[in-house]
Amino acid sequence: METTPPHSIDAREDCYPSRVQPEPEFLKRCDPIVYNHEAPGPLSAAQLSQFERDGFLILPAFFPEADIATYKEEIQRLGASDEIQQRPESILEPDHCELRSLFSVHKPEISPCFSEVAADPRIAGMAAQILDDDVYIHQSRVNLKPGFAGKEFYWHSDFETWHVEDGMPRMRAVSCSLLLTENYEFNGPLMLIPGSHCQFVACVGETPDDHYQKSLRRQEYGVPDQDSLARLAEDGGIVNVVGPPGTIVLFDCNTMHGSNGNITPFPRSNLFFVYNSLKNRLVEPFCSKKPRPEFIANRTAVAPLTMRELNVQSHA
Amino acid sequence: METTPPHSIDAREDCYPSRVQPEPEFLKRCDPIVYNHEAPGPLSAAQLSQFERDGFLILPAFFPEADIATYKEEIQRLGASDEIQQRPESILEPDHCELRSLFSVHKPEISPCFSEVAADPRIAGMAAQILDDDVYIHQSRVNLKPGFAGKEFYWHSDFETWHVEDGMPRMRAVSCSLLLTENYEFNGPLMLIPGSHCQFVACVGETPDDHYQKSLRRQEYGVPDQDSLARLAEDGGIVNVVGPPGTIVLFDCNTMHGSNGNITPFPRSNLFFVYNSLKNRLVEPFCSKKPRPEFIANRTAVAPLTMRELNVQSHA
Repeated sequence: METTPPHSIDAREDCYPSRVQPEPEFLKRCDPIVYNHEAPGPLSAAQLSQFERDGFLILPAFFPEADIATYKEEIQRLGASDEIQQRPESILEPDHCELRSLFSVHKPEISPCFSEVAADPRIAGMAAQILDDDVYIHQSRVNLKPGFAGKEFYWHSDFETWHVEDGMPRMRAVSCSLLLTENYEFNGPLMLIPGSHCQFVACVGETPDDHYQKSLRRQEYGVPDQDSLARLAEDGGIVNVVGPPGTIVLFDCNTMHGSNGNITPFPRSNLFFVYNSLKNRLVEPFCSKKPRPEFIANRTAVAPLTMRELNVQSHA
Repeated sequence: METTPPHSIDAREDCYPSRVQPEPEFLKRCDPIVYNHEAPGPLSAAQLSQFERDGFLILPAFFPEADIATYKEEIQRLGASDEIQQRPESILEPDHCELRSLFSVHKPEISPCFSEVAADPRIAGMAAQILDDDVYIHQSRVNLKPGFAGKEFYWHSDFETWHVEDGMPRMRAVSCSLLLTENYEFNGPLMLIPGSHCQFVACVGETPDDHYQKSLRRQEYGVPDQDSLARLAEDGGIVNVVGPPGTIVLFDCNTMHGSNGNITPFPRSNLFFVYNSLKNRLVEPFCSKKPRPEFIANRTAVAPLTMRELNVQSHA
């Protein structure tokens, strides 16, 4: 457990200014995607290249069914717990009382089960390999998109928010989504824009105080403009992440993504872990507002998952 | 042009009571789906059987690109017209000013172009064949689902509404949707539940006065219950209607359908014609309220499209 972040990069330099200009703008990405193609780890050279090109990698049925059954029981337990729903880490559906997201599920006091999953070398090892560094959990959550009334989540680059509102200096973080239910084409699956991670869409506008309380319920501010989104989607297309329970999708922190609503009877839930490089720890938010809560952006309780501990093996 | 509806069936008998019970209920369909497998027409025996089994038939790229280009120009004209947007036939997006739907596009005074399409023997002939009767346009519209902000349309059987609110006596109508833009898996395509047309889901509740003004913007009343929908979707699955511009989908008046929202940059538009059997003309609404406007449910300006005029040819 460290409390004083050591940074080997100039973390105070704002390479990705956003929400400060009157007009949207494409900025060149000035960070690597795969930090070292020779780094040891579970991913093959072809998988690393695919991740670098597309900004994501889908691994169908990566976790066995028995594990998924355990995780679903854990979610049942969390969803039924009044104590959990009253925690600040719980985000409810707009206009509904159902749990939409629960943050910090990697913490043993919230979920001993998911705490283990977050540190599982099978997934944390892939993140460490891509980022070529020891990692830690920047954010974790379980997302529950109910059947019949699941709301859409508008397009965004996670990094844009993490940079502006949380002070993540550079693009050196990887997200891992673990599908717990079957994701069909029609129940509001994650949509990704291939290649969108190679540019940064600077958004217009300012960050209001306490933005996070609203933005987690419904995106309103700091969203990418329609022209930029149309250009990205015309260039790269859109990929629906579909697959059976246990499927994993790894995606770069700057890959543009979103999801449509879900009127089908089939709910959609997933576990979501963000691994950040230990060299990329948070500084003060670049928007000069007060930082968001720790459960959304971990800045002090950093528990490193070292490459050595993750026992990452060379694929060679 | 006829004004006195002659009915060969007992049109006043309510075979499908809905919105009158405190609990939802599955009722047996008591009408044929394909009225005569030997009727002449453009559809093959295999296509008729598929329509009968699934409740719909998708014909990819049925209309040539040149025709679609003409239709899109016509929509541009209609969408840009202040005069059109101020007509009662225009329905706007909730919270937006954009056109969501325009009704009665089969009328020459609204669109000479779409008036011709509605009477085109290529599609009207298929409807007449399935229903084994002369047909007329019960309802027509163009639907425009914009990019970025297209709203969902919740599950419903059109017949449930047409029966309860418009007084359509029996299930003897076929809808034809003509896709004018590429329908992808991710831009809120029409979703159909195969086999759902074989049962009638009686909804709970009452029909409020002037329901149509709200329901066309956002479904609130007379919707199928979640348990019935879940059972239908578990039995039949869900099919996304995807395809290039010019694709046609024919579906039975009682096939359960809906669509998710559309946050992608790709808009979705289609032409929609409902062909009703001339023997199935509207009577008084079964909910005992005043009838909805003529542009939503054609009860007087019935212009028959006869099998003879449609020049339907036997497939044999």
